[in-house]
Amino acid sequence: MHSVQHLIDIGLAEDIGSGDITTDALVDPETKGAGEIVAKEDLVLAGVDVARRVFETLDPSVVFTPAFQDGDRVETGAGVLTVSGRLRTLLKGERTALNFLQRLSGIATRVRSFADALAGRSVRLVDTRKTAPGWRVLEKYAVRIGGAHNHRMGLYDGVLIKDNHIAVCGGVREAVNRARNGASHLIKIEVEVTDPAGVREALEAGADVIMLDNMDEAGIREAVGMIQDRALVEVSGGVTRSDLTRLADLGVDIISSGALTHSARSVDLSMRIQGGGAP
Amino acid sequence: MHSVQHLIDIGLAEDIGSGDITTDALVDPETKGAGEIVAKEDLVLAGVDVARRVFETLDPSVVFTPAFQDGDRVETGAGVLTVSGRLRTLLKGERTALNFLQRLSGIATRVRSFADALAGRSVRLVDTRKTAPGWRVLEKYAVRIGGAHNHRMGLYDGVLIKDNHIAVCGGVREAVNRARNGASHLIKIEVEVTDPAGVREALEAGADVIMLDNMDEAGIREAVGMIQDRALVEVSGGVTRSDLTRLADLGVDIISSGALTHSARSVDLSMRIQGGGAP
Amino acid sequence: MHSVQHLIDIGLAEDIGSGDITTDALVDPETKGAGEIVAKEDLVLAGVDVARRVFETLDPSVVFTPAFQDGDRVETGAGVLTVSGRLRTLLKGERTALNFLQRLSGIATRVRSFADALAGRSVRLVDTRKTAPGWRVLEKYAVRIGGAHNHRMGLYDGVLIKDNHIAVCGGVREAVNRARNGASHLIKIEVEVTDPAGVREALEAGADVIMLDNMDEAGIREAVGMIQDRALVEVSGGVTRSDLTRLADLGVDIISSGALTHSARSVDLSMRIQGGGAP
Amino acid sequence: MHSVQHLIDIGLAEDIGSGDITTDALVDPETKGAGEIVAKEDLVLAGVDVARRVFETLDPSVVFTPAFQDGDRVETGAGVLTVSGRLRTLLKGERTALNFLQRLSGIATRVRSFADALAGRSVRLVDTRKTAPGWRVLEKYAVRIGGAHNHRMGLYDGVLIKDNHIAVCGGVREAVNRARNGASHLIKIEVEVTDPAGVREALEAGADVIMLDNMDEAGIREAVGMIQDRALVEVSGGVTRSDLTRLADLGVDIISSGALTHSARSVDLSMRIQGGGAP
Amino acid sequence: MHSVQHLIDIGLAEDIGSGDITTDALVDPETKGAGEIVAKEDLVLAGVDVARRVFETLDPSVVFTPAFQDGDRVETGAGVLTVSGRLRTLLKGERTALNFLQRLSGIATRVRSFADALAGRSVRLVDTRKTAPGWRVLEKYAVRIGGAHNHRMGLYDGVLIKDNHIAVCGGVREAVNRARNGASHLIKIEVEVTDPAGVREALEAGADVIMLDNMDEAGIREAVGMIQDRALVEVSGGVTRSDLTRLADLGVDIISSGALTHSARSVDLSMRIQGGGAP
Amino acid sequence: MHSVQHLIDIGLAEDIGSGDITTDALVDPETKGAGEIVAKEDLVLAGVDVARRVFETLDPSVVFTPAFQDGDRVETGAGVLTVSGRLRTLLKGERTALNFLQRLSGIATRVRSFADALAGRSVRLVDTRKTAPGWRVLEKYAVRIGGAHNHRMGLYDGVLIKDNHIAVCGGVREAVNRARNGASHLIKIEVEVTDPAGVREALEAGADVIMLDNMDEAGIREAVGMIQDRALVEVSGGVTRSDLTRLADLGVDIISSGALTHSARSVDLSMRIQGGGAP
Repeated sequence: MHSVQHLIDIGLAEDIGSGDITTDALVDPETKGAGEIVAKEDLVLAGVDVARRVFETLDPSVVFTPAFQDGDRVETGAGVLTVSGRLRTLLKGERTALNFLQRLSGIATRVRSFADALAGRSVRLVDTRKTAPGWRVLEKYAVRIGGAHNHRMGLYDGVLIKDNHIAVCGGVREAVNRARNGASHLIKIEVEVTDPAGVREALEAGADVIMLDNMDEAGIREAVGMIQDRALVEVSGGVTRSDLTRLADLGVDIISSGALTHSARSVDLSMRIQGGGAP
Repeated sequence: MHSVQHLIDIGLAEDIGSGDITTDALVDPETKGAGEIVAKEDLVLAGVDVARRVFETLDPSVVFTPAFQDGDRVETGAGVLTVSGRLRTLLKGERTALNFLQRLSGIATRVRSFADALAGRSVRLVDTRKTAPGWRVLEKYAVRIGGAHNHRMGLYDGVLIKDNHIAVCGGVREAVNRARNGASHLIKIEVEVTDPAGVREALEAGADVIMLDNMDEAGIREAVGMIQDRALVEVSGGVTRSDLTRLADLGVDIISSGALTHSARSVDLSMRIQGGGAP
Repeated sequence: MHSVQHLIDIGLAEDIGSGDITTDALVDPETKGAGEIVAKEDLVLAGVDVARRVFETLDPSVVFTPAFQDGDRVETGAGVLTVSGRLRTLLKGERTALNFLQRLSGIATRVRSFADALAGRSVRLVDTRKTAPGWRVLEKYAVRIGGAHNHRMGLYDGVLIKDNHIAVCGGVREAVNRARNGASHLIKIEVEVTDPAGVREALEAGADVIMLDNMDEAGIREAVGMIQDRALVEVSGGVTRSDLTRLADLGVDIISSGALTHSARSVDLSMRIQGGGAP
Repeated sequence: MHSVQHLIDIGLAEDIGSGDITTDALVDPETKGAGEIVAKEDLVLAGVDVARRVFETLDPSVVFTPAFQDGDRVETGAGVLTVSGRLRTLLKGERTALNFLQRLSGIATRVRSFADALAGRSVRLVDTRKTAPGWRVLEKYAVRIGGAHNHRMGLYDGVLIKDNHIAVCGGVREAVNRARNGASHLIKIEVEVTDPAGVREALEAGADVIMLDNMDEAGIREAVGMIQDRALVEVSGGVTRSDLTRLADLGVDIISSGALTHSARSVDLSMRIQGGGAP
Repeated sequence: MHSVQHLIDIGLAEDIGSGDITTDALVDPETKGAGEIVAKEDLVLAGVDVARRVFETLDPSVVFTPAFQDGDRVETGAGVLTVSGRLRTLLKGERTALNFLQRLSGIATRVRSFADALAGRSVRLVDTRKTAPGWRVLEKYAVRIGGAHNHRMGLYDGVLIKDNHIAVCGGVREAVNRARNGASHLIKIEVEVTDPAGVREALEAGADVIMLDNMDEAGIREAVGMIQDRALVEVSGGVTRSDLTRLADLGVDIISSGALTHSARSVDLSMRIQGGGAP
Repeated sequence: MHSVQHLIDIGLAEDIGSGDITTDALVDPETKGAGEIVAKEDLVLAGVDVARRVFETLDPSVVFTPAFQDGDRVETGAGVLTVSGRLRTLLKGERTALNFLQRLSGIATRVRSFADALAGRSVRLVDTRKTAPGWRVLEKYAVRIGGAHNHRMGLYDGVLIKDNHIAVCGGVREAVNRARNGASHLIKIEVEVTDPAGVREALEAGADVIMLDNMDEAGIREAVGMIQDRALVEVSGGVTRSDLTRLADLGVDIISSGALTHSARSVDLSMRIQGGGAP
């Protein structure tokens, strides 16, 4: 997870810059302290290891002790983790560690609520590429922690043929053929369609997965009937939590939702620091 | 804005990786196209120049034409900008450009709604350091575009003395003295307090700004009366949009809100691409 | 192809270092020249755009004119491309540009010879991950230019289950189930086996692709018969050019060969420079 | 060897990318294992420390135990080194470590075969700058391990005056004078010539080293006779292993060969992993 | 101090490059040694931790033992610190460590001499932004070690309005208003003036700090009388050590001097190495 | 000069950081201006191209017009160069450009004064590795501009054997042999000695250059007599400007001086900006 360390480095650099002028002026370098990160609301935890690395990046000698692990439900008021070491390190890393935790746990918490609605069903809930630039790997990790699955990570590990692709190829069949020829034999071909005619073309072209984009319930039902087991069926487009069971009951294989990541709000966590004892 | 270019580079790299296997297989390198980014809901726009740079980073020869500029209100259905050039470039940059725009405009839209509630008053609405790591400069920019002000950018350009700092110094006066001595003469000293006793100490220590953290209305009123013009007064802690005018009426100078950034949801934008004509 | 530019930067830096002490001492900065890169043996060309970028990285004002394009067969003595501009630029970029061209064309030339042996057959010849670290994207590009296909680019865009994976999972079925659950729905599952028993287990576990590793002709024949169309069949292990048609005749879908990249020798190219005229 | 670590980082990043989706799905993070890298053919070993760093970059806690060291001859079937630790680490680093070892040992093996042909003679066998971009320091290291010497590392640590340089200076004497004036007093001046007239000019200009480029045996003999001890004599150009002793017998000081690096094929090494025990 | 590590990496890379060819050829990798850095003139020490990191960057196992700490006065001949470990490490890091120490201690020594001249007075001696690019954080650190204070670190942590700013705003009042509106409420506004009229305008505009640039003694006296306690007064412009007490007696608050950094000469330090014992 | 661009990037980043808060608040992005850099004392100019790149890095559209070139003597009051473009660009780049110019011209000016003292003599004045980390290439460039020569650039492009090296080898002869064997045939071997006995050993060992370190005039005279033309003679150690001709008269070939770089003070340059006209 090299890219995660890189984002941690950037996050610390943009917060600390040329120095924490308050702490450097007020706190002796050798003064020790301990901090506890506490949940201020009920949440599903994600990002413990990122928080650890934030502090260890500043000072490898900190002692970091998680009380929960990623994926755990944490109730309001519970201590999530403690970190002890130089008080300067705690004060400099506090905000960045919290900023990671509150965002990743916010996504995991939202995803868990969606996933719970689908408990016991075989449909697969997946995310999209609608993530904050720089955060792709982390946000998709939080989605898995929340209990859903990932769609492709990027443009490089899955073929998804959309209307523009089809237009330049002159048809679905040609598009699928080019994709099959160009991509590795370990990559499936997904085709996005918007109506039953599109479903038929995708099937005939040999698509492995068919995405029904913004189709209504009747359309989805018709499409599922046409496709049977000849391809996986994904539904997509403005899916809300209350849509989930109804969509699942239509017999689709995959439900994708951009809102899992792009509209999760941060959960509230804070850090209580004890310190000031003699070095 | 070197760091912004760096985040763009990371965002493109994490999305494109070893290649856009769909587009590379289906679309000829020289096929041209044009794309229009369209608002799918009412919003305050932010990030036009970032979107431009996303496409120009992939190919400096694209033609980028904004129809609105940052800070403009855009209504549902309006075209925000167009970009034309190689179809491959449009398809590869689309998601990253949208991911930047939807998040930055989401913040600007939320901030504008807060700022409008305070229209005509002299109180200053400011953000916090509760931003997504890697996005500090961009999110604070979106706050300004939305119509609010920035608090310090990081730990390096303002002194904010909190309870832990005071504890290790043995008192507010000593803490302020150390900060005054250590910081540049262009930096003001802010002290965070939670009750009137704290306000008195901060005033006697010569604080330039006093932050009333999570104090109730009576406490704020008392604090404002004690402070008069001897320091700027900032209120902070769980501020919602409906609190704004009431807080302003108490005579405070500054209202800070982490929710401006950490709980803004993305607004909905999409890209319509026309392409496939002969190169 | 951001990573390619990065390798170009490294290549130029390691060759030029603190300066080309010969050229800087002997050649005036404004003296112009022209260079022609010439094939010293018959080859399949690959890397023209990389060579262009080597010179343009040193000086964007060079004029670069290819006479052939990637994939073309070039005969001994033919001029491959010309570049003109400051003589200093030509002399500083010459070796790095040639080092890229000779290696990439070496791979393309070797691959073409393998691919030609399979002309007219439907079997897919693919590479492996046995590439020079730092060169993955470039070497796999040269393989495509030579006329073969790519296997997965790395560990991130395809599942390949080997004996160690199976051992820790306690069986092929469990391994395939875990992979199916963990990977995106756009990723196929390939299982490596060494005998017919393995083939049967892989089939029952629902593998999408079965790799027959170092199996003899009889074994391959038996495996192909068992698998029919229920999975793709890949053969691998010490494949030489003379094995190709025989393997193809056994009815396999994919033949993979590490030697396409790791044992290609560089082809011979040199640069003839004309220069020294007045600035 | 900062640049080597950089190449290792790139090599791991391009192979692992956003994650080893097979291993992450199938292998528990705490499962331990051990791997042994084995020679599949007779070879001269080079790159042990690079292989060590590949694994340690992924996880500093691995235990790495070499059975041979760089420069040792290793016979088919022998275990070269073992590494133990988390099974995930072994599986993620395996291919990159092997890719380094097989290429560097390939060069060392080829060089050793050339060097052995010159055993007991005082002539110095040297490499060239015909190396894979990014690999200069490593390939030149493998040459030394194989038993030959390095020519200059790049354009910065030696003066080599070629025909283009001479042309722009208007003569060898002027070229050598400019080089002597421009370069540090610790750098020798080498002049490349193609015939006896060139040798004479180089001698008169005061060259420290004279490179006889693609001259035939008679020409070399004549040149050696002219030069005596007034300069070092280097021969260059398409040197094969069978040419070596003949060239050495002509009395030259240095024989340079690009084929030592650019046409070495990788040697065959593989990794046997034992693992799956309880964490 | 991430940027400091980056400068150390650059410093080592530019000195060692592709290798220390002397040491690598002559000294066995396992030979141990010890080095002592000695003051060759009286100095105020600065940079001990940077020197430590230089050696630890090369090899984390060195043992580094300072005899003095930053800010200490060291007399000619005294040993400043010792470092022991592999002799190769000592020889490779020696020059870079000394280059850091001699420059930073040079600045600290010069600053101390200025600061001593102001001992017992309340005036604040500050530096400027006239530092060697790449060294801003380090040189400003050496200034503090020497006993003076820092002016703003860069353009981002303080407002300083100069004549060009005023010209484009159409007046001081407008310039100050724009700055007050644009900058965080923790940033003070400084205005540079050159005569009493400027002082009056700055006062009326509400400047927090007024810089008297290159004003003579009479002008400074008049300005101080006008300003009283309504703003801080800074004097600037060609200040020499002999000017200090006279300026302080005029009642100014701050004296700034670019010469503290840009004209400090390096102090003389050398390293004595003992080594060569058996590994 | 890739490393120079890197230092420019760092210099701009450390000065501008998260933004020029004064200029961004006061100056419209489209307001144009022009600036002239003026010499405030007599100097030898160095760094014009670096200054150009500082401004072009911020904005490639600036128009940069030098009135002098590197190496020119410039008198007090003369305009060195002008740059025009966006006023914001001029204000943001001003300090960094000046910081480069004042330091590089300071070195060139000092070196010229030394070089002039040796005018008409054949002795070579050279620098050392006593440069500010990060600035090696630039400071050595300024030395050449000033009229002196460079010693080796770093540890990689010349062999210099010192007492510690000799000690671990057990003698000068062994040390020289190892160096000759390990280094490229284009590298000369220099040995540092402190007395006539050392000179004799170095000669017998076949040193190409002998450095007389801190020897007195009688010792130098004796050494020169012993060495004759069998090696180059370099003197080193605390050389001042007034020593130069005396040393030259002793017949040495090379005089090296660390003070050329480490004790040069910056020369005074300032920038006059005109601006504020309509965009």
